[in-house]
Amino acid sequence: VSCHATKPNMLNVHLVPHTHDDVGWLKTVDQYYYGDRNDIQHAGVQYILDSVVDQLLKNPDRRFIYVETAFFYRWWKQQSSSMQQTVKQLVNEGRLEFVNGGWCMSDEATTHYSAVIDQMTMGLRFLNETFGPCGRPRVAWHIDPFGHAREHASMFAQMGYDGFFFGRLDYQDRARRMVKREQELLWRASNSLTPPMADLFTGILPNGYNPPEGFCWDQSCDDPPIRDDPDLEDYNVDDVVKRFLTIANSQAMVYKTNHIIMTMGSDFQYENANLWYKNLDKLIRYVNGQQANGSKVNVLYSTPSCYLQELHRANLTWALKTDDFFPYADDAHDFWTGYFTSRPALKRYERISNSNLQTCNQLEILGGPVSRKGYLFMLSLSEKAMAVAQHHDAVSGTEKQHVANDYARRLANGWQHCQVLVSNSLTALSGSSAKRIYCDNLNISVCPLTESSKKFSVNVYNPLARPVAWPVRLPVNGTSYVVSDAEGKSVVPVSTSTRDVRRNRGFAVNELLFQVQAPPLGFTTYSVSLLQDGPPPASTQHRTPTAIQNKVLLQYNASDGNNKESNQPSGAYIFRPNSSTPFIISKTAKTESIQTPVVQEVRQWFAPWVSQVVRLYGDSRALELEWTVGPLPIDDDLGKEVITRLDTSIKTSEYFYTDSNGREMLQRKKDFRPTWNLSQSEPIAGNYYPINSRAFIKDDVDQLTVVTDRSQGGGSLQNGSLEIMLHRRLLYDDVRGVGEPLNESSGVFPEGLVVRGCLRLSLDRPPSAADAHRPLAQQVVLQPHSIFSGLQAALPPAVHLLTLTQWDKDSVLLRLEHQFQSQESKVNSHPVTVNLSLLSLNLGVLFNFITFKEKDKRTLKNDRTVRGKAKMTTKVLKKMAKTL
Amino acid sequence: VSCHATKPNMLNVHLVPHTHDDVGWLKTVDQYYYGDRNDIQHAGVQYILDSVVDQLLKNPDRRFIYVETAFFYRWWKQQSSSMQQTVKQLVNEGRLEFVNGGWCMSDEATTHYSAVIDQMTMGLRFLNETFGPCGRPRVAWHIDPFGHAREHASMFAQMGYDGFFFGRLDYQDRARRMVKREQELLWRASNSLTPPMADLFTGILPNGYNPPEGFCWDQSCDDPPIRDDPDLEDYNVDDVVKRFLTIANSQAMVYKTNHIIMTMGSDFQYENANLWYKNLDKLIRYVNGQQANGSKVNVLYSTPSCYLQELHRANLTWALKTDDFFPYADDAHDFWTGYFTSRPALKRYERISNSNLQTCNQLEILGGPVSRKGYLFMLSLSEKAMAVAQHHDAVSGTEKQHVANDYARRLANGWQHCQVLVSNSLTALSGSSAKRIYCDNLNISVCPLTESSKKFSVNVYNPLARPVAWPVRLPVNGTSYVVSDAEGKSVVPVSTSTRDVRRNRGFAVNELLFQVQAPPLGFTTYSVSLLQDGPPPASTQHRTPTAIQNKVLLQYNASDGNNKESNQPSGAYIFRPNSSTPFIISKTAKTESIQTPVVQEVRQWFAPWVSQVVRLYGDSRALELEWTVGPLPIDDDLGKEVITRLDTSIKTSEYFYTDSNGREMLQRKKDFRPTWNLSQSEPIAGNYYPINSRAFIKDDVDQLTVVTDRSQGGGSLQNGSLEIMLHRRLLYDDVRGVGEPLNESSGVFPEGLVVRGCLRLSLDRPPSAADAHRPLAQQVVLQPHSIFSGLQAALPPAVHLLTLTQWDKDSVLLRLEHQFQSQESKVNSHPVTVNLSLLSLNLGVLFNFITFKEKDKRTLKNDRTVRGKAKMTTKVLKKMAKTL
Repeated sequence: VSCHATKPNMLNVHLVPHTHDDVGWLKTVDQYYYGDRNDIQHAGVQYILDSVVDQLLKNPDRRFIYVETAFFYRWWKQQSSSMQQTVKQLVNEGRLEFVNGGWCMSDEATTHYSAVIDQMTMGLRFLNETFGPCGRPRVAWHIDPFGHAREHASMFAQMGYDGFFFGRLDYQDRARRMVKREQELLWRASNSLTPPMADLFTGILPNGYNPPEGFCWDQSCDDPPIRDDPDLEDYNVDDVVKRFLTIANSQAMVYKTNHIIMTMGSDFQYENANLWYKNLDKLIRYVNGQQANGSKVNVLYSTPSCYLQELHRANLTWALKTDDFFPYADDAHDFWTGYFTSRPALKRYERISNSNLQTCNQLEILGGPVSRKGYLFMLSLSEKAMAVAQHHDAVSGTEKQHVANDYARRLANGWQHCQVLVSNSLTALSGSSAKRIYCDNLNISVCPLTESSKKFSVNVYNPLARPVAWPVRLPVNGTSYVVSDAEGKSVVPVSTSTRDVRRNRGFAVNELLFQVQAPPLGFTTYSVSLLQDGPPPASTQHRTPTAIQNKVLLQYNASDGNNKESNQPSGAYIFRPNSSTPFIISKTAKTESIQTPVVQEVRQWFAPWVSQVVRLYGDSRALELEWTVGPLPIDDDLGKEVITRLDTSIKTSEYFYTDSNGREMLQRKKDFRPTWNLSQSEPIAGNYYPINSRAFIKDDVDQLTVVTDRSQGGGSLQNGSLEIMLHRRLLYDDVRGVGEPLNESSGVFPEGLVVRGCLRLSLDRPPSAADAHRPLAQQVVLQPHSIFSGLQAALPPAVHLLTLTQWDKDSVLLRLEHQFQSQESKVNSHPVTVNLSLLSLNLGVLFNFITFKEKDKRTLKNDRTVRGKAKMTTKVLKKMAKTL
Repeated sequence: VSCHATKPNMLNVHLVPHTHDDVGWLKTVDQYYYGDRNDIQHAGVQYILDSVVDQLLKNPDRRFIYVETAFFYRWWKQQSSSMQQTVKQLVNEGRLEFVNGGWCMSDEATTHYSAVIDQMTMGLRFLNETFGPCGRPRVAWHIDPFGHAREHASMFAQMGYDGFFFGRLDYQDRARRMVKREQELLWRASNSLTPPMADLFTGILPNGYNPPEGFCWDQSCDDPPIRDDPDLEDYNVDDVVKRFLTIANSQAMVYKTNHIIMTMGSDFQYENANLWYKNLDKLIRYVNGQQANGSKVNVLYSTPSCYLQELHRANLTWALKTDDFFPYADDAHDFWTGYFTSRPALKRYERISNSNLQTCNQLEILGGPVSRKGYLFMLSLSEKAMAVAQHHDAVSGTEKQHVANDYARRLANGWQHCQVLVSNSLTALSGSSAKRIYCDNLNISVCPLTESSKKFSVNVYNPLARPVAWPVRLPVNGTSYVVSDAEGKSVVPVSTSTRDVRRNRGFAVNELLFQVQAPPLGFTTYSVSLLQDGPPPASTQHRTPTAIQNKVLLQYNASDGNNKESNQPSGAYIFRPNSSTPFIISKTAKTESIQTPVVQEVRQWFAPWVSQVVRLYGDSRALELEWTVGPLPIDDDLGKEVITRLDTSIKTSEYFYTDSNGREMLQRKKDFRPTWNLSQSEPIAGNYYPINSRAFIKDDVDQLTVVTDRSQGGGSLQNGSLEIMLHRRLLYDDVRGVGEPLNESSGVFPEGLVVRGCLRLSLDRPPSAADAHRPLAQQVVLQPHSIFSGLQAALPPAVHLLTLTQWDKDSVLLRLEHQFQSQESKVNSHPVTVNLSLLSLNLGVLFNFITFKEKDKRTLKNDRTVRGKAKMTTKVLKKMAKTL
């Protein structure tokens, strides 16, 4: 109803005024909001929203779309109620339209679906509660992310979006689609869900997300304004109209209908919206004025949903797409596959922060209202920090160093706040008001409490809905300890010396290891006491350096841009090795091995800056590869990109498999794209794909699955081989805007960043591999923390408790997920019945909230996220089902 | 009434939001208005006015001042009547205040008072007719011009301004005034007018015209915005308030009252006024919020006139100033004395265009309504072109080359339009509808008509109100001509060969010279016919090169910035020779002399790029020095600044005299400033002053006056010596913003510009010198053009008819001026009586318009401009008297 009329016998040009407001990139999200540090980049979102609202009011024909709720929310809070009323009116009249509407525009290559759902919920919920149905975004709008994940499309379809628009895709793919008029297509985004459940109309925008050349009228642009004063020498209306008609007609040649869309805006534009609208008003007037002279072009203010509506009316059949849009290349030697791995420490911190946040949310509910005394329950610091971290220049690693620091600081602050809540909750649940100590530096083997105490207790909370066994490693200075569980039963601990272990940053001389068993959605407590005269630490067998047979750790030297094919260097976005053959970092290694009842460990030192521990736990079939890499040496003036390569005898026939945002798996093939005839110009970088949680290679007999602890890039370049990039350090900016080399050598790491991570390898028969890797991956994502049984019984293996969080004062939000893809597991891929009454026994509150068709039971189908909320009317529930 | 209340026991800080909109500089005036070519400089005045009006409406406390009517006028024309009504309301409520209000903010060093009055009239008249009394500017506001002329202050005082504010003055002067608290002063701007007729309160602004450091909130600035969201990490309100209080208190130390002014704006700022006002609103709120905690600082939105009103209420006595503010230096080696001469060709073209315009205006009236068929009478192209040319980056020569070209093009277009009117008028006056041909290229000796015709007639119009004798020089190809005047009386012509005269650009082989006599405010006609067998051209006596005794033409080599004292190079603004001794261009010259009854001429060639003709006419006591200079050679990689130096035996005692904007004369002394103890650091550049129309040196016996044909810089560096800079060509930008070296080698002059000019020297007894130089200078300013007697008798010598122009449909504007300074002439410096009935005899229209107290007679006092307009009520007349 709020869409402008179009003309059926003309070419209708939909002008979409918009701004693209990165939730952090060259500046922090706060700096962007206020317009601080304009010396770095001129951008101030508060002024954009001020200005756009002003200008919309000046002419009811004008339209605007807004995308990033993180910014809009902040602006909204500062408005007077009369201004809020005005904005509501604009929204109700369709003059201001929200698109996408998540807290941010998430990255698609390096995010986990769990955090993406959370950030979308935050944004959409705010819009829904503030504006009701008229505020509901109808289209998803990912105009900037550097490649597009199928799982994102699947989520958007399930959230009820009518369509999806984006700007970036492989240049070869774009060229082919232009010729075949397939820039608008139907994306079937799941091979588990029954069509059309995950079908999503997808449109590729004509100029990325920029205006056509010569028509940028923002204050940041230099294109000539429309000079329509005939008294002036440089009257240019005729020229502008002519140029516009040429562009519109050319664009119409590569799209199917008599409607085309033009994005009139770009990064942080519309800070002074008058410039844009004044000239767009004139453009529309003068171009449409030509209709009297026989012109067949009709220009109008529009929005993506109005454009989509016209495409829908065209009633055409669109090309079908079932794979994804990775990797993204904008030229022959310019593959955006570096950011799959960029800033590995930030990527890990984002992942562990998600686990922290879920723990925090769950304990808030388990502990009841006392948990949150003094803290707001919704839009907490921690949730906001996680939401902005999903931005496509956040966890992606493509932001400036100071901005990366800001994201990490936000996550840390969020966790600080959470700790208060967790302590309150544990006090309520356990009845013990002992002071809770948090050791946030265990990743560098530092914990003042365990290092200095002779007796301490460890609470372990398990945010998974099934029991978990988990190794706990603590830095200690004693040699022998007694560990007992909550019932006083003794647990076998192992104490190993760390004296020679150069990779640790702390001062503890030993490491104490023991396996804990934690109940589903609950906590348990272990007591640790120093033995005065215990045995010495587990002995290690030192070996002299030997040649390593399986060359697992290698490095690429980065292209520095001085290259005859192209001057593209490797950088934060782009991966471009200067040779297709990686170098073995060292052919020999110093090695140590330890055999204990709990774990068998082989420690390998390849160089002062590369080491690895290979572990096999007694009670687990998975092999752990703990890598420690850095600071990468750069004294040869070459950037480095370090990979681990697993060479096997599996006959892969050039196929391998990677996950999409941690959920469904996609098949990859070397030098191949499912939808077009690839001309491969970068044999390594052009075969890299994002790995969010796992990758595998397989043949009929064996499947090797690698579960990662963060998003990484990887590829399979030889038969039986799987390589994963671990760390990168680069000396040149790769000319995509960030303006910094990805060097990570500032602040506390002047010599360069050291990163540690863990790959978990599982070798299985292909038909049962998923039964191992699905729970394993969830266990890595939601790793144990701290404590109380909220479940009488565990959920079935197929069902993952994705979210349990306070929704509002009187209700909580529970998300249950079928975590197995169709057919990947004989045991677990089937529909499963959940007895929801199980949940209710200890969680009376929760029981009331789940309102499904069947009172207490619900059959979860594969790969479907179910949602529920208590005390909501059916109407609200329906709306939620579409937006959440 | 519209001024905000102040607090008597506090320091009141007047925040003055403003924009400084150059009427051309780095971009043309059209480009600035529309915001075109933002790649050169981001600036779009249309958006500034849009935005400011929007923002003023948002908060009635807010204030804004606007200055340049050239821009405001254009914007106003494009507004809807409801927007015009809104703006009127803002003006009436004092929320939008006009200051200065001329068409532009004129240059003070290189403008002639006649053109300045015209441009002020245009702007003020528009404001008066559009807004009435509330639109009347109360203060003059020359925040940017590079030094300040006493004659400008005198004009402002006579126009009725309450005060004057500016930003730039010599750094030593500023330092002294800060210590003595004399940055606010009383300027007694005339030694002819009886005080307080030319007394003007003058205020020097604290930060040029910029905001204090750290408080620039324009989109073009990078200062931190006020971040007042306490949820944010980087909340900075306390810091901002503290910094502001420190700055305000420091500023108060160097001013006299408990009121200080801060200019919150700068070049082309407020394009997005929201940024400024949003932060200023907060600043005022938070700073004044501190009053509750005992702060004694009160901040308010204000305007210069509100500030001035508070100063007036303080009832103090201000320091008195009687000299001027030239030259301006912003550091020890940075004297802005180069622009006195920069772009000498443009400076001449501006001056001759003024003459053209006056001729055009007069003939419009003399010819009556038929003159203007097809053309608007007011705000003509020509008047607008002249008005913008007065801007302080126009005739000053400090604009970019393409902008200089634009000013020249505008002047040429204006004259093209005028030619139609002049032709119409001559047809009406003479009864002959012969096609009129204009030879606009006589300056380069090109006129197709005279070069190719055997018989032609020359109309000569004299825009002066007294008869004039004037030499006419025409390029011809014949050797002998007969010339007769309107009554058929034969006139003696001289034809000279130009075959060897390298300085001429055309193809004509001879030059025809004859003296014309033109009646006051009228035209006459001369007929020219080729004689078939006449005598050959006047013979010339060639001489072999001889050493020149009086070394008249010299050059400075420009400092290139590589200098141990300072890295300041010579440039468009700044004059800085690399040595204090100028080089003699050539010690020998090729010389030619001609003796004719009309003129004696000596032609000198010093170098291929420097020549001079010395002329003495039979009927004139003045010696003419016609110089032709250029292209200045730069193959030695040194910029050049060419001067002519007149060395005499006059005992000057280091004094010399220069005019102020073509009117009163000021005494200058080497290495001396009347108001402070000068520490001289640039012995040449620091002794240069602007010469707008004349300079002289004298002792008790002799006075040598040099009348220039354009504005030039000059100085007297030795006893008896006077030097005038003719031309400059520089290879470095002088870092004051223009961003181009003053090379003038583009377009049709790839090898550099050739400039020709004329100095007219008059040697007299000092008491009678003015009787010669006053009429001579006016004759150069208003030089003869084309014809019909509008005056029965001439005006007395003391009275100059300054302006005669159509005012509106039913009336004309006549300005009569007493052109002699007090006491400079025994004969002419006295009051004089004009019989206005003389004017009426042939100009019935005019007679009705002059309404003085005495019906037909008026005593003109020295140096007073009288004004009159017919059919105006007394009230309107009074208002005019104040604003015109």
